[in-house]
Amino acid sequence: MENTVVWLEDRIKLIDQTKLPQSFEFIECFNYLEVGDAIKKLKIRGAPAIGIAGGMALALHMTKTDFSNFEEFNNELKKVSDYLKSTRPTAVNLFWVIDRINKLIEDNKTLSIEKLKEIIGIEALKIANEDEKMCKAIGEYGIEIVPNNSTILTHCNTGALATYGYGTALGIIREANQQNKNIKVFADETRPLLQGARLTTWELMRENIPVTLITDSMAGYFMNKGEIDLVIVGADRIAKNGDTANKIGTYSVAVLAKENNIPFYVAAPTSTIDLSIASGNEIVIEERNPEEITFWGDRKIAPDGVKVANPSFDVTPSRYITAIITEKGIIRPNYNDNLLKIFD
Amino acid sequence: MENTVVWLEDRIKLIDQTKLPQSFEFIECFNYLEVGDAIKKLKIRGAPAIGIAGGMALALHMTKTDFSNFEEFNNELKKVSDYLKSTRPTAVNLFWVIDRINKLIEDNKTLSIEKLKEIIGIEALKIANEDEKMCKAIGEYGIEIVPNNSTILTHCNTGALATYGYGTALGIIREANQQNKNIKVFADETRPLLQGARLTTWELMRENIPVTLITDSMAGYFMNKGEIDLVIVGADRIAKNGDTANKIGTYSVAVLAKENNIPFYVAAPTSTIDLSIASGNEIVIEERNPEEITFWGDRKIAPDGVKVANPSFDVTPSRYITAIITEKGIIRPNYNDNLLKIFD
Repeated sequence: MENTVVWLEDRIKLIDQTKLPQSFEFIECFNYLEVGDAIKKLKIRGAPAIGIAGGMALALHMTKTDFSNFEEFNNELKKVSDYLKSTRPTAVNLFWVIDRINKLIEDNKTLSIEKLKEIIGIEALKIANEDEKMCKAIGEYGIEIVPNNSTILTHCNTGALATYGYGTALGIIREANQQNKNIKVFADETRPLLQGARLTTWELMRENIPVTLITDSMAGYFMNKGEIDLVIVGADRIAKNGDTANKIGTYSVAVLAKENNIPFYVAAPTSTIDLSIASGNEIVIEERNPEEITFWGDRKIAPDGVKVANPSFDVTPSRYITAIITEKGIIRPNYNDNLLKIFD
Repeated sequence: MENTVVWLEDRIKLIDQTKLPQSFEFIECFNYLEVGDAIKKLKIRGAPAIGIAGGMALALHMTKTDFSNFEEFNNELKKVSDYLKSTRPTAVNLFWVIDRINKLIEDNKTLSIEKLKEIIGIEALKIANEDEKMCKAIGEYGIEIVPNNSTILTHCNTGALATYGYGTALGIIREANQQNKNIKVFADETRPLLQGARLTTWELMRENIPVTLITDSMAGYFMNKGEIDLVIVGADRIAKNGDTANKIGTYSVAVLAKENNIPFYVAAPTSTIDLSIASGNEIVIEERNPEEITFWGDRKIAPDGVKVANPSFDVTPSRYITAIITEKGIIRPNYNDNLLKIFD
């Protein structure tokens, strides 16, 4: 598939995911504020894709701006970094990318401004390419957990659109399909923004992978009927103990899977793992605009003035997670020990 | 509140629930086919309300038609009864009302056609009035399970709109509010048709009961955060062992409640209890139109040709149900014994 985000000299070109599946359109962002706005409005979403877009936005700005000395360069770097980090508070990949670029500059601060610009540009592209390799590695490791002829439930979109171009949970599904495992997929529609209905079905249908769309409230029903063999979801942030923040509704899917003795897997690059937080209790949950729930396009679907709660993520305690599949291998409990090991 | 459905001489007048909350409109049905169509299109919904409307439709038709003998009368009664029962296969109250009227006619078949018409008309109105009394009784018994200052989660709409005019699960909430128990409510939006977002919030806001609207996928999140004290839902059919068919998503809410040690109550009139079926396995689950999921008004929200599953109900096994609250009292496990007792 086309890459979700591309840096073209003076602009960042993105697939506008809010337009899918009705139309397949690109938007062009000519500065970091436009990229930040696209992140806030979910024109680009998915933790890895946001990280890549953020890195490219930072690199675009820093390479196209004139600086007379390192201090000026560095102040601007910090300012733009802070802004970009503020656009989505939960997705750790964005922080990870921005911090990685900042550290690289810190480590090379004795170099000329021209050289620093070159370094920053290369790094942003390297991060994107690494992502694609990571996703493929996740797919290759993950294939082991997918039995032949199995039906996989997934939540939200963790596909090519959520990454640079292959997918995490959907990467495993793609890989299983390529290896002719004869799989089927159930896709939760994923309210409020319907990433499952709009994006996951679209990606899977493009590759002729059989997919059935259901509302989030039906996942338990099909598990209880014995129609689901395993669950694979993505992650926005994984704590040191394995607790996983992901799209709202993931926790419910995990509890229902446990109750029905169905394995529940998280697929994510190691950049999603945040060893600085001991458990999911420390993860800040982003609260989004109530109108995501009360409106459908221009049409109001709830009474005027109704109070709404709209947490965008939830945290699935690690006791519900059968394994975490990363580009470095499959990690099983005890996560407190085994997540650490993967970084050695 | 206004009654959900009223029989006015030559027509049945219904609140058009598909128009709420944008506009509060009535539709008028001049024959049983129009009522059947309104049931199919969910202009009227909620198991008790459907039963009442079905009974009135049958009575309207039978009282306004000319018959030359009992056989003609009885054949027409069977034909219209069969049609009305076919409009919603899961809700047992509709069957219960139609069967009750048929039995009454069978028991009085020696009477004149004129007298039978009178009987059928009185019975349809009696069923409606009984419903209102039943709901009030459910509210009065149910008050005992609502602690002061508690937050109640509910799913779908079980309010005045789902009944003749008071509500089952929402009847208890209404009663608790009237007794100044200082309650709050979380309403699941209830995909695909959003009865929670459109109807439950609307009813509660009209009575100034504090309500927060959430997507179905958020119920588990708020339970896990400790913000929900109890769950009350309605029922479309309850088997002899207590297994309960209700709006799709109810099973998931029940599993999540159990996992979080939150009591889960079903509120329903005894007409919802179907002793003829031993367990929920025998309940036929209605599959509805895929476009309920793939369209929003005129707007398509999933790719062309996507496969969809759209079961309208699920069955919650009785082991998840703390108690069933009826107009005859609160029934607790063992349901196989205790549901039978309530009919003695």
